Amino acid sequence: MPMKAVALNASLKPAGQSQKSSTRRMIELVLAGFEEHGVEGEIVHLSGLDIKPGVTSDEGDGDAWPDIRRKILTADILLLGTPIWLGQPSSICKRVLERMDAFLGETDDEGRMVSYGRVAAVAIVGNEDGAHHVSAELYQALNDVGFSLAPNAVAYWVGEAMNATDFIELEPVPDKVTNTVSMLVRNTLHLARLLRDNAYPGEK
Amino acid sequence: MPMKAVALNASLKPAGQSQKSSTRRMIELVLAGFEEHGVEGEIVHLSGLDIKPGVTSDEGDGDAWPDIRRKILTADILLLGTPIWLGQPSSICKRVLERMDAFLGETDDEGRMVSYGRVAAVAIVGNEDGAHHVSAELYQALNDVGFSLAPNAVAYWVGEAMNATDFIELEPVPDKVTNTVSMLVRNTLHLARLLRDNAYPGEK
Amino acid sequence: MPMKAVALNASLKPAGQSQKSSTRRMIELVLAGFEEHGVEGEIVHLSGLDIKPGVTSDEGDGDAWPDIRRKILTADILLLGTPIWLGQPSSICKRVLERMDAFLGETDDEGRMVSYGRVAAVAIVGNEDGAHHVSAELYQALNDVGFSLAPNAVAYWVGEAMNATDFIELEPVPDKVTNTVSMLVRNTLHLARLLRDNAYPGEK
Amino acid sequence: MPMKAVALNASLKPAGQSQKSSTRRMIELVLAGFEEHGVEGEIVHLSGLDIKPGVTSDEGDGDAWPDIRRKILTADILLLGTPIWLGQPSSICKRVLERMDAFLGETDDEGRMVSYGRVAAVAIVGNEDGAHHVSAELYQALNDVGFSLAPNAVAYWVGEAMNATDFIELEPVPDKVTNTVSMLVRNTLHLARLLRDNAYPGEK
Repeated sequence: MPMKAVALNASLKPAGQSQKSSTRRMIELVLAGFEEHGVEGEIVHLSGLDIKPGVTSDEGDGDAWPDIRRKILTADILLLGTPIWLGQPSSICKRVLERMDAFLGETDDEGRMVSYGRVAAVAIVGNEDGAHHVSAELYQALNDVGFSLAPNAVAYWVGEAMNATDFIELEPVPDKVTNTVSMLVRNTLHLARLLRDNAYPGEK
Repeated sequence: MPMKAVALNASLKPAGQSQKSSTRRMIELVLAGFEEHGVEGEIVHLSGLDIKPGVTSDEGDGDAWPDIRRKILTADILLLGTPIWLGQPSSICKRVLERMDAFLGETDDEGRMVSYGRVAAVAIVGNEDGAHHVSAELYQALNDVGFSLAPNAVAYWVGEAMNATDFIELEPVPDKVTNTVSMLVRNTLHLARLLRDNAYPGEK
Repeated sequence: MPMKAVALNASLKPAGQSQKSSTRRMIELVLAGFEEHGVEGEIVHLSGLDIKPGVTSDEGDGDAWPDIRRKILTADILLLGTPIWLGQPSSICKRVLERMDAFLGETDDEGRMVSYGRVAAVAIVGNEDGAHHVSAELYQALNDVGFSLAPNAVAYWVGEAMNATDFIELEPVPDKVTNTVSMLVRNTLHLARLLRDNAYPGEK
Repeated sequence: MPMKAVALNASLKPAGQSQKSSTRRMIELVLAGFEEHGVEGEIVHLSGLDIKPGVTSDEGDGDAWPDIRRKILTADILLLGTPIWLGQPSSICKRVLERMDAFLGETDDEGRMVSYGRVAAVAIVGNEDGAHHVSAELYQALNDVGFSLAPNAVAYWVGEAMNATDFIELEPVPDKVTNTVSMLVRNTLHLARLLRDNAYPGEK
């Protein structure tokens, strides 16, 4: 069975404008790297989906979360992509983290969350500044809800302080970004394979 | 003219359940403090309002933001109240900060943002842990978009690590919370009065 | 009496190399701005001083903190300058924040900390990324220990993601930095003057 | 060969008072858990050691870092323990993260940092509030400098908001802490064993 990666794009742009999303571009670079290793990738564009506020796994009628949750749990790798606003992750990114809070209570009879065994990585873009903080917030939240992290689990780009260039306008992709993406792919995939074959032990 | 405070409640609970919102309880304590000094207070319960994703001041048809924005700019004091999830502010809180990003471009001909002269304070509650970090995120975002901060601009409560008590269940309100609320009210109001009578200078 | 500003430089560089400190360059830009308005400035280069670990105001024999503390309390404005390492403030910056923790217990008989009435601002430089997060950490810690914050209380520069340029190498200073410094100076000084003449009220 | 864990205690207390360190108590709980699985543990009490400021692996005469660095690289697991001050990690904790920044440039000819293959976990204690944020800061910094993270990589305790109880005074250790420690130990050890036998791949 091939490995699977699901990428969540937490851009604020509506789905119809996703081709203009800098976040999408970074996600596509990472997924292209995974595909070279035979990993099947899928992108879910979150903006426009009705992911209801709440901290359970199903907030009822019309809630878009149960479908997204299923995709996350079917995949081996979760790539969470977000733009930076005011130096922080987007509100849409926060919404999906909030919904994953429910994993804390969804444990098997050996105390392991339903998310265990999956590896997370993050893709972050902004006009300027904020990537390290956003990765810190995402690492902590994702680790709290059961994900493992390989070293250098972030692919990011931001411009010089107070500048307004979008990542999607940059041609070509800077070498440093390409190298970082490649490192993320190697490490995250290595860890995902190890964990697929070797589940975390439960409470005895 | 009396001073005005507008409080935004970024609880995830629907408006119909706002009477069960721990965040609302903390907000009400702060507003009651302000009212003793003659400040008129108003609470906007955000969950359920259609605040569209985006970073402009009006994202078009059906956007609930322009009304909220007007309330913020009519008031002297902004109280931003949020619950803590995964140690971080709620997605709804993040959404309103994102929308205030537009203030960065809304300056008068002396370079002063439309929000200048207003004072912000924050109200934070959670079952356990996260208040200092949430205040850090909110202070930075609010300061970036033009608000001033008096000392000790946060009223908060969280329980012991990994506990599940809600602030709304606590009877009576702990003295430490009461004292903190009182300090917030004194300092924030003092600063708001000074700034109402003494506008920040613009570029010459 | 002229207003006074004390700047703490939390660069990791030894004092003998302070002329190569990018943090110092940003601090000097801000102090020059203050001086145009008649504010007397002083820089304390922290690296090399024996600021002992601890959370009291005097950790005993040889502790460099009591002198620095005196300078902070003699000034109207505190400018805290730090480089960014791993997206976070320097360990030296953290040390001085830790020592200011003692202000929490140093209150007058109306409950006001010894630091009240002072305004803080921050100066942050790095090769790449991290300024917003560092300002968040500093705003929260400084606000907790009694300082007020005017809008846009940060002067910062960072380069493009994963780049290695130092701020001290940039000629000339980018316009965006100059404008930010000027805004910080105007706002912070305005607030400091208001608070010098109008002390925060205490508990009745 | 038995697995090894090195624990760094970033308490502000001098080594002579380490028996009163709440951070030490949490570290000892974790190391005791590891020892049940045959892992050899060692604690380095950092306060009092002359870890010089800087971002290279040896800052010269008298620098205590090279010895600590050697212990980190000899171990399979790094446990970084820190108290919380003002909701943030201690200055001593920041100092060791800063020194690990040097790992970024210490790569083999396939681009892998000297730290790769090691797993990190964190132990955090405070009177009140801050553990999630401290774990976020530590996860991000440790991941940036090459460490892997198993799910739920933090053992922590904090008291109710604005309370002053020390973790070291609590008798007995709360069950929630015991369970968290046990989960950390299982997960982190599982990951460390996998990575000892299966190195991350390098660039082709």
